[in-house]
Amino acid sequence: MSKRFATGSIVGAAVLAFACGPADRASEALRPASSGAGPGVTELMAARGLSDADVLAALKTYVPSGKHDDFYLFSSGGQSGQVIVIGVPSMRILKYIAVFSPEPWQGWGTGDDGSRAVLDAGQRNGVPLRWGDTHHPNLSETDGDYDGQYLFIGDKANARMAVIDLSDFTTVQIVANPLLQSDHGAAFVTPNTEYVIEGSQYPAPLGGAYAPIEDFDQKYRGAITFWKFDRSRGRIVPEESFAIEVPPYMQDLADAGKLASDGWAFVNSFNTERAHGGNLEGNPPLESGASQNDMDYLHIINWKRAEELVKAGETRTIAGMRVIPLEVAAEKGVLFFAPEPKSPHGCDVTPDGTTIVVGGKLDTHVTLFDFAKMKALIDAQDFVGKDPYGVPILDFQKAIKGQVELGLGPLHTVFDDAGNAYTSMFVESKIAKWSPSQMKLLEKIPMEYNIGHIAAAHGDTVKPRGHWVVGLNKWAIDRFADVGPLLPQNFQLVDVSGPSMQVVYDLPIPLGEPHYAQMIEVGKIKAIDHYSPVGFNPVTRTKDENAVDGGRERIERHGNQVDVYMTQVRSHFTPDTIRVKQGDRVRLHVTNLEQARDATHGFGISSYNISMSLEPGEHVNASFVADRSGVFPFYCLEFCSALHLEMAGYLIVEPHEGGEAAGERADSRRHASR
Amino acid sequence: MSKRFATGSIVGAAVLAFACGPADRASEALRPASSGAGPGVTELMAARGLSDADVLAALKTYVPSGKHDDFYLFSSGGQSGQVIVIGVPSMRILKYIAVFSPEPWQGWGTGDDGSRAVLDAGQRNGVPLRWGDTHHPNLSETDGDYDGQYLFIGDKANARMAVIDLSDFTTVQIVANPLLQSDHGAAFVTPNTEYVIEGSQYPAPLGGAYAPIEDFDQKYRGAITFWKFDRSRGRIVPEESFAIEVPPYMQDLADAGKLASDGWAFVNSFNTERAHGGNLEGNPPLESGASQNDMDYLHIINWKRAEELVKAGETRTIAGMRVIPLEVAAEKGVLFFAPEPKSPHGCDVTPDGTTIVVGGKLDTHVTLFDFAKMKALIDAQDFVGKDPYGVPILDFQKAIKGQVELGLGPLHTVFDDAGNAYTSMFVESKIAKWSPSQMKLLEKIPMEYNIGHIAAAHGDTVKPRGHWVVGLNKWAIDRFADVGPLLPQNFQLVDVSGPSMQVVYDLPIPLGEPHYAQMIEVGKIKAIDHYSPVGFNPVTRTKDENAVDGGRERIERHGNQVDVYMTQVRSHFTPDTIRVKQGDRVRLHVTNLEQARDATHGFGISSYNISMSLEPGEHVNASFVADRSGVFPFYCLEFCSALHLEMAGYLIVEPHEGGEAAGERADSRRHASR
Repeated sequence: MSKRFATGSIVGAAVLAFACGPADRASEALRPASSGAGPGVTELMAARGLSDADVLAALKTYVPSGKHDDFYLFSSGGQSGQVIVIGVPSMRILKYIAVFSPEPWQGWGTGDDGSRAVLDAGQRNGVPLRWGDTHHPNLSETDGDYDGQYLFIGDKANARMAVIDLSDFTTVQIVANPLLQSDHGAAFVTPNTEYVIEGSQYPAPLGGAYAPIEDFDQKYRGAITFWKFDRSRGRIVPEESFAIEVPPYMQDLADAGKLASDGWAFVNSFNTERAHGGNLEGNPPLESGASQNDMDYLHIINWKRAEELVKAGETRTIAGMRVIPLEVAAEKGVLFFAPEPKSPHGCDVTPDGTTIVVGGKLDTHVTLFDFAKMKALIDAQDFVGKDPYGVPILDFQKAIKGQVELGLGPLHTVFDDAGNAYTSMFVESKIAKWSPSQMKLLEKIPMEYNIGHIAAAHGDTVKPRGHWVVGLNKWAIDRFADVGPLLPQNFQLVDVSGPSMQVVYDLPIPLGEPHYAQMIEVGKIKAIDHYSPVGFNPVTRTKDENAVDGGRERIERHGNQVDVYMTQVRSHFTPDTIRVKQGDRVRLHVTNLEQARDATHGFGISSYNISMSLEPGEHVNASFVADRSGVFPFYCLEFCSALHLEMAGYLIVEPHEGGEAAGERADSRRHASR
Repeated sequence: MSKRFATGSIVGAAVLAFACGPADRASEALRPASSGAGPGVTELMAARGLSDADVLAALKTYVPSGKHDDFYLFSSGGQSGQVIVIGVPSMRILKYIAVFSPEPWQGWGTGDDGSRAVLDAGQRNGVPLRWGDTHHPNLSETDGDYDGQYLFIGDKANARMAVIDLSDFTTVQIVANPLLQSDHGAAFVTPNTEYVIEGSQYPAPLGGAYAPIEDFDQKYRGAITFWKFDRSRGRIVPEESFAIEVPPYMQDLADAGKLASDGWAFVNSFNTERAHGGNLEGNPPLESGASQNDMDYLHIINWKRAEELVKAGETRTIAGMRVIPLEVAAEKGVLFFAPEPKSPHGCDVTPDGTTIVVGGKLDTHVTLFDFAKMKALIDAQDFVGKDPYGVPILDFQKAIKGQVELGLGPLHTVFDDAGNAYTSMFVESKIAKWSPSQMKLLEKIPMEYNIGHIAAAHGDTVKPRGHWVVGLNKWAIDRFADVGPLLPQNFQLVDVSGPSMQVVYDLPIPLGEPHYAQMIEVGKIKAIDHYSPVGFNPVTRTKDENAVDGGRERIERHGNQVDVYMTQVRSHFTPDTIRVKQGDRVRLHVTNLEQARDATHGFGISSYNISMSLEPGEHVNASFVADRSGVFPFYCLEFCSALHLEMAGYLIVEPHEGGEAAGERADSRRHASR
């Protein structure tokens, strides 16, 4: 036995049993290499430089072929404009969901209609936008826990909100906030998804108005928008939504109250200094101008009260949105402030709803605001004063449960199932584990590098699941093989199930810079694998009026408009030849007749910027003007069968009568050069 | 000892040594769970249902935090229009490189200039294209092996070719093929990257001409384009490139000869039937029309001879490209055919260059064409006849070394360092390992599911490295947690270092459908981590003429044009306030002054569709017309420091004098509704 070990050729449970125990569990895979069956554990450890801890980490995270992950991690994709779906614990990226940016694999934003209608609904001032900066995904909740039905995500750059239907992982709605130019605390849902909260970031005149920056204090404002969500329709209802005007501080993250604090919402802020840069004009840059005060303001919002005021008509309408004016919010019990140190970032309500944890960013503490104390102060009208806009301010010491000193740069906090809290420490590049009940720091572990956000299994709900925490690290530096100057971010998976935290996986994020993520049990999401009935349009969520039944394929001409009613089935398009005249508007109505899982077809055509994805049963409409004459192959974009390459056809665009055809031009060149 | 094992709480090399050997390697991580340090190997295996084979697979693929992968896998991203960079053996996706589609994280295609110039250079008929269907990445080669300098990739949908510089993983050139409407055998490089080969797929009149489909046989053509690559400039040189006209079959995959066959290229084809669909017009669909013949034609091309003819002026110029006409190619020793069974797909030259392996797709064999035999037949003018276009045809039996029966649907073949070949079997959903020297099948293993392409470490070069093979599986079906009807593809990593093949990892591809991949040793690529000198423009590959030195920031007005010379450094823009008038053209010239690795900044602005990524030292130009009045925040898109949120500024767009300002409109609405 010791001889075998000395050769390093055998090891592991099976061999241990073989050598020392009664049961022989030795499998072929663990046999000594000398038998010809490949290396065992010890050999692999030696050959690959794996430590004992590495072995355990590998076994905690490896998901064998055909087995599924335990959790989904829904992460924002930052300036990619997308949402990233990651499996935990394997940390494999399962899907990028197209949201604010066109994406040809999903056929997102193709043609002049179809999914482009969703994108174009997110226009601002009539200008269609073709990217977004996704920040904070929020899953729909029932009774304060994720229900797996919808995902909401905000676009910081353009102050927009998107709704993703998790039955098919498809974006179904984008709404632009008519008041704001940018947001940050978005999306955050109330405990039964009554509202999706979108908080402003950089103040500007509401409604897109112009005002010189010298009028910053007087005319620039923020607003906290409560988008009404109609779960039965799966849509935000702008006309039933409202907003609360807030001062021109820079509002930051937000969270909805729950349980003890249900009916309230909390938004923190920085730059109560109201700095606005001008560093070539003699002013300090914003970064120093906004960092003068020791305290900023936690915004405490009674949204149930706000609902009453909206019903009572105490709003003014700006750019179509009902807004509770700042003076009304301040005077009538909607908006209160509590001082919070210093330029805070995260604002996270504990699972029981009693406490709001604020990360200090430029302070070394997390501050725990006690909702019951704050509510009592508000009820007693016990304020220490008002801000310049008349908003009542609570006494800091009376409002808090206390502070816990964690170290440098505390940002965001999530929770586990054992009463612990985990805070990302940006400056220190660590995760701090601490106890809200004991008010003490328990442990810190390094992150590589510069952790921004942090996520945990159901970690911001009323019922955290524990086991896993993910650090969303902003810098990767040396963690991965080089890919040029633009590096991936690094998501580090941390096992928090044991007595000490262990980093068990580094995941490079290959596209986009995430800002927040939520982790949900896989069983909570009931996704479909095909559309039914055949001809279903995911944009309209119903069978399309132009859906094509097998045998009913046809081409109809109406003046200059050519309607092509096409089906797909392995492995042909019907029709596969489309003859039009130059200048015709071609309207494609394509139905994938398949109902088998994964029997997706695509439709791509040369030179006309059209790519479609047609999942089993799906119907897509896409139209374009055939303004160039010539011969344009189209083909299936998904390798659907052995005859996939043969799944092709031709669009033949005959030149204008009397017009110079592209073909004639080419021919003349050809002859001229012979 | 046996008691310990019976509890299932200890296991592994360390414990084995502790129990049975002299050395105590037991670490905290492998201590019994009862000691409070978390589960050991046996417990994890039991809890997570891991088999012995799973454990070994995990240990073969797991790359611990901070360690790097051994290989890069460069994969096409299919209709996403991108390239995917994957680390092997961890199978982590390291980066999506933007190529044919705009991508806001990389600032790809932003503004009216900058990287958009690269995208727009790939226009067709004056129409900018905003997606591509990337198929076959090919790394630049020196002496037939990857040299790690450049990556080329074709766009099947629009017949284009892109060049990616691997010093910074950035697309530097896109050229549109003026002859073709679609390609497939693209890109494939010659052994010293003299040329990048692009073969047509669906025939059409060359040069974008129109011809009715009834003229298919007479006027539709393919072409094999040899793009000249200038390595010193890192660019394709269209004016030094040429093409060879080929018959209207559907050309498919291609490979360049090497060593014994250097100077030649091989392209296979299907649809020598010249079917072209018309299934609503009484014709068979293409899939059956194209599958009638038992044999199609391997295209055998003497590109050295073609070079001579081009030099001698035996070309005609079509749409600006020099083309060797089909009759010249057929008559003057450039183009020959060999029959190949049946609707083949892969066309792969063995590492020694002696043999061309063709996968039968609808045949059960791989056919091995013997280059020496074919060359002898050609030299002897020993042909069995000509095709309808006059191309000489070799005798099948005289041209081949033989056939190996592998099973159903053989597609692509790659090679290892031990003389073995690996062929993807689409219909059977397996990888077949076989011996070209012994001409026999060795082993098959299942793929989940429907393997299309296949890749191996340097597996299509003169010097394969062995160890790893990747199956690029087209369907995932049940492999991963559900993500709706559109499923990821499944890359399965196969360890081929042992006596039998082992699947060790399933990687979902979260975006795009890959078609081919190449695997290169990490050490071969020397990527930079910052741009130097500061002010470097990756598009022009030089210091930008508008690069801004620190202290030289300024805003200059020239009539209606406002030039903003801006720098970025943690954590501010200089200038951070930009005042313009509605209708001004704003030209942003932004330099990131940082030189530290990973110190990337972004630039995003509300409502104007501008997102930039500025890696350390990078300079980017982006311009737009400020056609909407109002107040538009801009901010850094990358979380660069603790004061990242404060890295922001304002674009203030004053309304036209006398014009109705957006602000006035909003104000009037506000007042009207009070």
